[in-house]
Amino acid sequence: MTKTTEGSPKKVQRVETAESMAQKQREISVSEFFLKNRHLLGFDSPRKALMTTVKEAVDNSLDACEEAGILPEISVEIQQTGDNRFRVGITDNGPGIVKNQIPKIFAKLLYGSKFHRLRMSRGQQGIGISAAGMYGQLTTGSTTVILSKTKNGPKAHRIGVQIDTRANKPTILAEEEIEWLPTFYPAQPDGAAPVEPVSFKHGTCVTIEMEAAYIRGRLSVDEYLKQCAIANPHLQLHYRIAVLKKENAKADNGKETEGANGAPAAEGNWNTFQRAVHHLPKAPAEIKPHPHGVELGILMQMLKDTHARTLRSALSQDFSRVSDRAALEICEKAGLNPKANPTRIAHQESEALFKALGETKLMRPPTDCLSPIGEEQIIAGLKKEIQADFYTAVTREPEVYRGNPFQVEVGLAYAKPGENQDLGADDPVRVLRFANRVPLLYMAGACAMSRAITGVNWKAYGLAQPKDAVPVGPMVILLHIASVWVPFTSESKEAIAHYAEIIKEFTYGLQECGRQLSVYLSRRHRQAEADRKRSYIEMYIPHLALGLREILALNDKQEQAVVTKLSDMLERTHLDV
Amino acid sequence: MTKTTEGSPKKVQRVETAESMAQKQREISVSEFFLKNRHLLGFDSPRKALMTTVKEAVDNSLDACEEAGILPEISVEIQQTGDNRFRVGITDNGPGIVKNQIPKIFAKLLYGSKFHRLRMSRGQQGIGISAAGMYGQLTTGSTTVILSKTKNGPKAHRIGVQIDTRANKPTILAEEEIEWLPTFYPAQPDGAAPVEPVSFKHGTCVTIEMEAAYIRGRLSVDEYLKQCAIANPHLQLHYRIAVLKKENAKADNGKETEGANGAPAAEGNWNTFQRAVHHLPKAPAEIKPHPHGVELGILMQMLKDTHARTLRSALSQDFSRVSDRAALEICEKAGLNPKANPTRIAHQESEALFKALGETKLMRPPTDCLSPIGEEQIIAGLKKEIQADFYTAVTREPEVYRGNPFQVEVGLAYAKPGENQDLGADDPVRVLRFANRVPLLYMAGACAMSRAITGVNWKAYGLAQPKDAVPVGPMVILLHIASVWVPFTSESKEAIAHYAEIIKEFTYGLQECGRQLSVYLSRRHRQAEADRKRSYIEMYIPHLALGLREILALNDKQEQAVVTKLSDMLERTHLDV
Repeated sequence: MTKTTEGSPKKVQRVETAESMAQKQREISVSEFFLKNRHLLGFDSPRKALMTTVKEAVDNSLDACEEAGILPEISVEIQQTGDNRFRVGITDNGPGIVKNQIPKIFAKLLYGSKFHRLRMSRGQQGIGISAAGMYGQLTTGSTTVILSKTKNGPKAHRIGVQIDTRANKPTILAEEEIEWLPTFYPAQPDGAAPVEPVSFKHGTCVTIEMEAAYIRGRLSVDEYLKQCAIANPHLQLHYRIAVLKKENAKADNGKETEGANGAPAAEGNWNTFQRAVHHLPKAPAEIKPHPHGVELGILMQMLKDTHARTLRSALSQDFSRVSDRAALEICEKAGLNPKANPTRIAHQESEALFKALGETKLMRPPTDCLSPIGEEQIIAGLKKEIQADFYTAVTREPEVYRGNPFQVEVGLAYAKPGENQDLGADDPVRVLRFANRVPLLYMAGACAMSRAITGVNWKAYGLAQPKDAVPVGPMVILLHIASVWVPFTSESKEAIAHYAEIIKEFTYGLQECGRQLSVYLSRRHRQAEADRKRSYIEMYIPHLALGLREILALNDKQEQAVVTKLSDMLERTHLDV
Repeated sequence: MTKTTEGSPKKVQRVETAESMAQKQREISVSEFFLKNRHLLGFDSPRKALMTTVKEAVDNSLDACEEAGILPEISVEIQQTGDNRFRVGITDNGPGIVKNQIPKIFAKLLYGSKFHRLRMSRGQQGIGISAAGMYGQLTTGSTTVILSKTKNGPKAHRIGVQIDTRANKPTILAEEEIEWLPTFYPAQPDGAAPVEPVSFKHGTCVTIEMEAAYIRGRLSVDEYLKQCAIANPHLQLHYRIAVLKKENAKADNGKETEGANGAPAAEGNWNTFQRAVHHLPKAPAEIKPHPHGVELGILMQMLKDTHARTLRSALSQDFSRVSDRAALEICEKAGLNPKANPTRIAHQESEALFKALGETKLMRPPTDCLSPIGEEQIIAGLKKEIQADFYTAVTREPEVYRGNPFQVEVGLAYAKPGENQDLGADDPVRVLRFANRVPLLYMAGACAMSRAITGVNWKAYGLAQPKDAVPVGPMVILLHIASVWVPFTSESKEAIAHYAEIIKEFTYGLQECGRQLSVYLSRRHRQAEADRKRSYIEMYIPHLALGLREILALNDKQEQAVVTKLSDMLERTHLDV
């Protein structure tokens, strides 16, 4: 039987045909897509939106300063302007942005300089800051305002942009040349100590107004900035969070408030995280793709795009770690002419080439593209912000996942129980996660770093640990991954994907630190034991001496000598630790 | 002091300027973005890639059939062609696709008919099937081949496409008009019972070759298809997974194998999930946005785009649940002229309008846009695939999150301990998650449905439950969310975001089912208790009767009467359940 099945049409309300369906097919712009899916970008709650905006702007400022060889100094100003509205302004002393690039950088998703290269940087997608502006526009209808002055430009530019989400293109709403404000750092409110003004000769300032919520705590802007200062000790960071008084916020819901024109102004003081290191971290180099991390489709695309004239030179020029000799060997293995035109390699030939590349032994990718924080700097950063008794850190050697070099660092800070109020002896340890020096606050549960921590047997190092959980104790664990391409689990860049190579490296790093911790803890344990014994000795020996004095009829001096001798002897016997 | 800080340039390797950085800014195509981030689309491992590909193709086929009012019949054929290579072919009896739409639908990300409307469907992004083709292209360099015939077209089209990832545009590599193959369903291998061939008069067949891995188990294609049949009882589903014998796979790595030309062919039988319901589910209606779920930025965009000539008619035409009278009320509240041109509403006016919309009481969104599975169908689906002793299901009333209507369903199947080998009495219960009738296999930990399950106090219903975990027992829990816009946590659509409204609805649904379970379990418990008592009675009464017989010198008949009477009396006393 040959059968054909179709539903009875009378049951169906509206029946489409291939032709009517074709009418409805449409392109979806990437802005429309992310506007509807804004939780993918970290804008799912008002609180998180505020943190994400600050993070994206600060990331960009730090990247720009470092690329331009400028020691970064950044100010973050958050002002409440209504019940659930905030104006966020981030200013840096970076190189500034050329005028005609400003609209696209701030109001077009998937636009940037970092996606197409293999180099370690905080930004990598070309989405973040435009997404923050788009969120502001969505929730308040407002315009992103950018003020920027380059080193060589005579004046600064002030540009207001929105995203045309249908087309994913910037719409310029305001544009003017102005004098760069020499001083951005306002005086303190009455009563506070006066602060020296700071001025930047060049740089960029971005201001976005948005629906948001400011709540202190582990997921707050404050926490982000604090962790940012730990991982970037070369950063001078000023910030001010000015919140409306309750009654003002209620009365003035949704409208801008300015102290100058009589409306109630938000109040809040400036704070500064002082720079602890006065030189820039080593600038990471840009690298070429490594053959062992390239997929067949990418190889075919690269051959099509190459500027080299022979297959052999394409291999040695466009890939890292392929010497001229190795290129020849690969061509021979694949049965291809090394002088062939690389843009004309057929599908089957490129498959053979792909196989040959995989089978050829090559040096691992270069690692000068990575710029780890460094063991000393991690310990310095932890000491600066976390009061503890024991600090240690490990920077592992670089490794490779899917052809991408990466490097892992782990730090520990252990406080004596009871000596740091933030670190309870019976609480799970605090975990600080970083990727390319950027703090990751959300989605800890989904992160490869958390997996590595729970996978380590902490009992072996002297900590309590519930099954499949983080250990318990008055401790902070810092983890950092540096890579030319950090594999995040979502566009909001909050958690690291579970690559086995990455989890393994973190595990080794944690174990190394754990062993150091174990040495410290057992020394401390022995010390405590010794202290306990000493207190026994001090308590009982005088009584013993008194008894001896009576039995042997000693005088005061002799009694004292007995006490000293007995103490010495007992301490020597039991306290040789 | 006014200070300006810059790093000493001699320490820096390459210093960028605003101008040099501007040179490097570039647009990133959405294909490039997702190619590099393919784990976001569900292509992070070879095993998952296979499942995701089948899922995306089957989702599209089901959507197309239902929209065209056709009872869906689909075949899935997976053939191993090399060590880690598979060819995946999905054929449906749908309405077919108009020729000029085929390239964009299968080789352009963010293209489709489902994103811009508010209507329940499996697909919603316009990414899935093109992403699967892109993954095949990336890993094997191969071409996606589509064969499609519409009802009215005289012949079928066969088109081969790849994505130009730089431009996110299709490249057509082959195109021909052919006769639609009347029979796709091949004969069984020797020894198996002959199968009737099936032919579709029209429909679509897509074939993708890719790097993949086939592994059975909870995350496999088999499991996906099985769950798909449970949630879509109106679907007739044929499938065949043909895996190379080990030695063949090794010998023939990476090359196509065809039984016909002498190469070793993969082997595997066809299986069919029979349709259990012979009519289509109620077709969901398309709705307009509800004012209470629209953000200010969207409202402004809608006013700009409206075809209405007055503000009042724009409100009543473009939104759901805004009557003409309500529109007038809203305009008055906002202090705006109802006859104003809606496309010329200023920023501040639209803020007032937004506020007025929020403050106006309106009916909840219509719910005919939702098509739940239904309590009876859920129980039928569970009975068909899961052997158990007790079944129950609940379809909750529709609710709203962020203006989007959604509806939640929960089903339970409880097996007598030991009677279903797949359901261990000491194992965590099995959870089947569905969104718009699509099974969700991965990322259970990140899903709002899991959160709802662990949040319920199952001990109250008679199940053991470790802290913060799913309950333990020989049970299956089925959860389904139907919505015009399912809020997934990532583009790969594997988990539901944690909206409080959604978790609440699932919790209520689970509790309702839990109460039914509790009634069943306590009845079963009392029954077991009764059985136990009855066995005591049966054991001891004859002895008692024997004792009485000796004391009272009863004869056989009298003794038997005593046994009967005592049994009756005791059973009546203790077993009145």
